[in-house]
Amino acid sequence: MTTVLQPFPYAKRVPAVTPMGAAQASSSSDVIPFSYGTPTSDAFPYDGLKEAALKAILDHGRDALQYAGAGGPQVVKEWIAQRSALRSIDVTTEQVLVTYGSQQAIDYAARTLLEPGDHAWVEAPTYFGAVSTFRSSEALITSFPIDEDGLQVDLIEKALEEAVRRKHPLPKLVYCMPNFQNPGGVVLSLERRRKLAELAYQYNFFILEDDAYVELTFTGKHLPAIYSFAPERVIYLSTFSKIIAPGIRLGWAIGSSDVIRRMNTFFQGSKASVFSQEIAAQLLQHLPFDDHLEALASRYRSSRDVMVDSLKANFGEEVSFQVPEGGFFIWLTFPEDVDTGRFVQDAYERGVSFIDGSKFFVRPEGARHARLSFSYCTEEQIRRGVRLLAEAYQAYQASRTAN
Amino acid sequence: MTTVLQPFPYAKRVPAVTPMGAAQASSSSDVIPFSYGTPTSDAFPYDGLKEAALKAILDHGRDALQYAGAGGPQVVKEWIAQRSALRSIDVTTEQVLVTYGSQQAIDYAARTLLEPGDHAWVEAPTYFGAVSTFRSSEALITSFPIDEDGLQVDLIEKALEEAVRRKHPLPKLVYCMPNFQNPGGVVLSLERRRKLAELAYQYNFFILEDDAYVELTFTGKHLPAIYSFAPERVIYLSTFSKIIAPGIRLGWAIGSSDVIRRMNTFFQGSKASVFSQEIAAQLLQHLPFDDHLEALASRYRSSRDVMVDSLKANFGEEVSFQVPEGGFFIWLTFPEDVDTGRFVQDAYERGVSFIDGSKFFVRPEGARHARLSFSYCTEEQIRRGVRLLAEAYQAYQASRTAN
Repeated sequence: MTTVLQPFPYAKRVPAVTPMGAAQASSSSDVIPFSYGTPTSDAFPYDGLKEAALKAILDHGRDALQYAGAGGPQVVKEWIAQRSALRSIDVTTEQVLVTYGSQQAIDYAARTLLEPGDHAWVEAPTYFGAVSTFRSSEALITSFPIDEDGLQVDLIEKALEEAVRRKHPLPKLVYCMPNFQNPGGVVLSLERRRKLAELAYQYNFFILEDDAYVELTFTGKHLPAIYSFAPERVIYLSTFSKIIAPGIRLGWAIGSSDVIRRMNTFFQGSKASVFSQEIAAQLLQHLPFDDHLEALASRYRSSRDVMVDSLKANFGEEVSFQVPEGGFFIWLTFPEDVDTGRFVQDAYERGVSFIDGSKFFVRPEGARHARLSFSYCTEEQIRRGVRLLAEAYQAYQASRTAN
Repeated sequence: MTTVLQPFPYAKRVPAVTPMGAAQASSSSDVIPFSYGTPTSDAFPYDGLKEAALKAILDHGRDALQYAGAGGPQVVKEWIAQRSALRSIDVTTEQVLVTYGSQQAIDYAARTLLEPGDHAWVEAPTYFGAVSTFRSSEALITSFPIDEDGLQVDLIEKALEEAVRRKHPLPKLVYCMPNFQNPGGVVLSLERRRKLAELAYQYNFFILEDDAYVELTFTGKHLPAIYSFAPERVIYLSTFSKIIAPGIRLGWAIGSSDVIRRMNTFFQGSKASVFSQEIAAQLLQHLPFDDHLEALASRYRSSRDVMVDSLKANFGEEVSFQVPEGGFFIWLTFPEDVDTGRFVQDAYERGVSFIDGSKFFVRPEGARHARLSFSYCTEEQIRRGVRLLAEAYQAYQASRTAN
């Protein structure tokens, strides 16, 4: 028997390092967590969940605890289909796939659309979890900048024309967050939505429309989803993580029956937790959802306001940012020569965490930016956290002047 | 704007057809379901789950409903590590990865180990869900027969020697179910476990040891896991689906810290449903687990006995089978010229479902076999189902004689 262990040639698709993620969020730390893209635990519908869980177990458990589940999964799909109409998305339940959070929907979409070596285009900045997932499908990634109206679709169009001219490969998917972009906080304009949809038909790529934050609008306004302009070439994603609770791990994908059927094959005949879906179904049937959402949006709007005021008071002209009209994040821009990665550790030691800008880019750029989340903290924590952040920034600036 | 939709070149890894799976199991059908590999709903610990869910929501909800969860996931891992010692598996919690059922563990293992074009070796017959998952990693599949002592490891050894001699590619993984194999019902002998482990070191492949049914032993006997003989080259899988309930979708993988870290990257910083894990943790802390298991095993042992008796009474010498000492399945062997696929539809119309043998093979073979599950049905259903199956078989034989 061989006693020396030979090295094993693992698949190249395995990421070399553990990706950053939300799993660290916990109320047990003393550090004020501006880094977490997580909802406030204050807003979870505990009573509703309790009643829903009891119903799921005691009234429907014989089926809800089996592989196939009881009626819950169908109720959830119907709710999603109906709710999506608000975004001008007109679908049947066959076009809805419920997944373990939208992270799994991104994975299944990537594996459905991308061969190793295919090209995926993303926003700059963008959500690192999606990039990491595209990489695990061995895709090649290119990024395109956003501005105050979201992804600069004119640059996408130019790049597509250029690729055709030079016979370079076209993208198989373009990943885009149209509402309250993570981390930029911006909303993709109506005109750009239409244009991007048109390009998807013309150049035959899929748009992966990640709409995790859509329900958390502070103005009540809704633009039509990109999906509504290109239903055969958009996979639309959203999640219950921000509107019920992340721990139940339920998200969804909407697409053509064809692409949803293909994505569904990765479930190998199974479904996303049917027991959690039964709980969600019971909750959705009994929760006054509009009131619940209004309370959520109101809470997050206040938190945003407190953070905006604190930033102005503590940083003055040193940072600029667009005030987000929904979602969880404020995206800071510091003066050009600042590298926020240089004071992230000091800030942490002072008692506040945030994510430095370069983490949201696929190329080495974005060091002057920082993402602050106002979603998880109390107003008191937000005020204190911004003060601590300003102290860390001032110490960083002082050390640079001294050198 | 282009109005004619171009065909989209989907990734080759997407299976062409929806795989067979357990999702169809539901108590609402009138057909007696010998086809379902599902536990009986009678055995779910409803009261324990109710208490556990209330604790998870009301006592631990602030964290348990967040991305990272409360203490539950760690409790679950500790329980798994301790319980695994019964199988001579000696591990820390860093070597345990909790997944959405063992199906996801198979997927993450396949994606970690297999490049497109790599070889995976499986048993014949084997579990179709695993084969389908290996195919979605674009692996090439070869199968090796089982006998009454499980996988014929001597044939694996010969094939490895042959591959070296002919400079053919060696497998990257060998997929094996050592206890109460699905569908064969057999147990891999101790000697073969040792030998397979030795070959894994010698030829540098991983063994994917799928031990879904291990707790459901009718004799109380436990052999050491293959893992115990080759901890650096085995990924061991099991699940709560058969011992708590499938609907909560929790399984696990055990391996070296290195391979578990790699598999974990596919979670992209997330975890398998932390809320379901909190419920499982609360349940495991309060359920008298040995009593629960004993009741389960006793129930399934009786069901097996009833099915064995019914088969003997209705089929006499027409079918042969090994009486399984655990698990859910009886694997029937009919006379050589029988094709069970020819009466599966008639049986269904008469009121009993089963899975015809060829579904469990990767090559066109196995038509004389059939898998019957005794796990989901009442004893009354089992007696009636076997009678209906015998009628369908007799009608099939009569129609052949007539032609």
